[in-house]
Amino acid sequence: MVKELRISSVHATTREETNDLVAIEEPLEIQLQVSGQQPETVSITMRTPGDDLALAVGFLWGEGVLTSFDQIDTARSYVIRVSNQVCTALTSGSKPNISQLQRNFYTTSSCGVCGKSSLDLIKQKSQFAVLPQEPILTVDTVHALSGTVRREQATFEQTGGLHAAALLDSNGTLITLREDVGRHNAVDKAIGSQILANQLPLSDRVLFLSGRASFELIQKASMAGIAVVAAVGAPSSLAVELAQSTGITLIGFLRDGRFNIYSGSQRIGQD
Amino acid sequence: MVKELRISSVHATTREETNDLVAIEEPLEIQLQVSGQQPETVSITMRTPGDDLALAVGFLWGEGVLTSFDQIDTARSYVIRVSNQVCTALTSGSKPNISQLQRNFYTTSSCGVCGKSSLDLIKQKSQFAVLPQEPILTVDTVHALSGTVRREQATFEQTGGLHAAALLDSNGTLITLREDVGRHNAVDKAIGSQILANQLPLSDRVLFLSGRASFELIQKASMAGIAVVAAVGAPSSLAVELAQSTGITLIGFLRDGRFNIYSGSQRIGQD
Repeated sequence: MVKELRISSVHATTREETNDLVAIEEPLEIQLQVSGQQPETVSITMRTPGDDLALAVGFLWGEGVLTSFDQIDTARSYVIRVSNQVCTALTSGSKPNISQLQRNFYTTSSCGVCGKSSLDLIKQKSQFAVLPQEPILTVDTVHALSGTVRREQATFEQTGGLHAAALLDSNGTLITLREDVGRHNAVDKAIGSQILANQLPLSDRVLFLSGRASFELIQKASMAGIAVVAAVGAPSSLAVELAQSTGITLIGFLRDGRFNIYSGSQRIGQD
Repeated sequence: MVKELRISSVHATTREETNDLVAIEEPLEIQLQVSGQQPETVSITMRTPGDDLALAVGFLWGEGVLTSFDQIDTARSYVIRVSNQVCTALTSGSKPNISQLQRNFYTTSSCGVCGKSSLDLIKQKSQFAVLPQEPILTVDTVHALSGTVRREQATFEQTGGLHAAALLDSNGTLITLREDVGRHNAVDKAIGSQILANQLPLSDRVLFLSGRASFELIQKASMAGIAVVAAVGAPSSLAVELAQSTGITLIGFLRDGRFNIYSGSQRIGQD
């Protein structure tokens, strides 16, 4: 996940040649192969290599293209490393919702979205509803999330260039952690690994984000049935709106012994 | 650019209800209208509202769709605020390179990229070459960039949720600054404002980034003829490779009296 480079390091006016590590960023072409047909390219994303199948499956699930574990032919899903491609093979008879992709990507049709609200335009409906009182996290558990993830976050320490996404249980125990140059990729990889293990919905999981919480990341959580998202950075307005409308607990600025609850504060119990 | 919300703020175990500001995030539909034809939707991006025409023009330039100021019909280019759309009208006879967009977006063709290197696959050729010895920045000027931008960066202070992109001259004087929830949008807005003012190539400008430097942002700089990029955060491997191959000076970790030079160190003079 890292590469060593020769750089000039400047401290005040002192300059020295030294070695430095940077996070690897490379394009990944995501393909989808419906049984009996040719693979189709559905997206090219800039990501840190590794866990590419989980990334592809997580991405396709978050976009509403895949909706069931049974659609994924895990035996035939594969990664071609040399050309930075990944192909998600589907079981015979699967009907992925390819049309969902046109929401986010280039389309030749002229505008058909006027008159809709911003949120209607881009919001996807999750097949999983969250239960308003589950899970419950203590304040202490929330404070401890960041430290738990940081202890496992090896690559960030080396390069300062990777985002982390982690899934933890409601006691704050780490289930899985992924790092990537793209924050959406880290989330796709974390959720995708659980899709491949047939663990959805992730009703009892907390999604931890090392950076900011954008609309897109809350949408991915919602599509996986996650009820609690905790971010080290700031949320955007639309992230808060989506969390409120889907009943997700959204925590921001989780650091230095503080945090803000932007939505669903009933899930954070007093100790 | 900001919205006020009611939140729960938790400090250690103390919890209070308070008001908080978050950065606004909303979808923007970018349309391109070739003279005499219907507008076509070319992208939907999540951005902070404001300066939408500059965003659209900067985005289309960075993708290689627009290549000349003369193509843009500034008199007819307009923003429809209510539906969050922006339309970039083109002059009569303009031929934008729409096919460029398919590089990044959904395409129904099967894989045609095997055998190319990662960089070849996604790299765009800029019409502007940078001069290897221009501009020259002193070490003091580089150190001062961050403070100059920070003094003008009003919205970040309020929300902690916005990325900044700024253009400065080689003496460190601020030319323009844009803030957005998306780092690529902030860059598109800053460069787009200069395209609309017919100022390209930006050969004597420094692009300052408040966060990390990814491949995509270096590509946007290259397409605008910018020779120096300075980022507060870490660069990725591919950002460094692209900077090296295009002759761009890439500075990272510009903070706390330090910085690293990953490419083009000859432009950073001794004081």
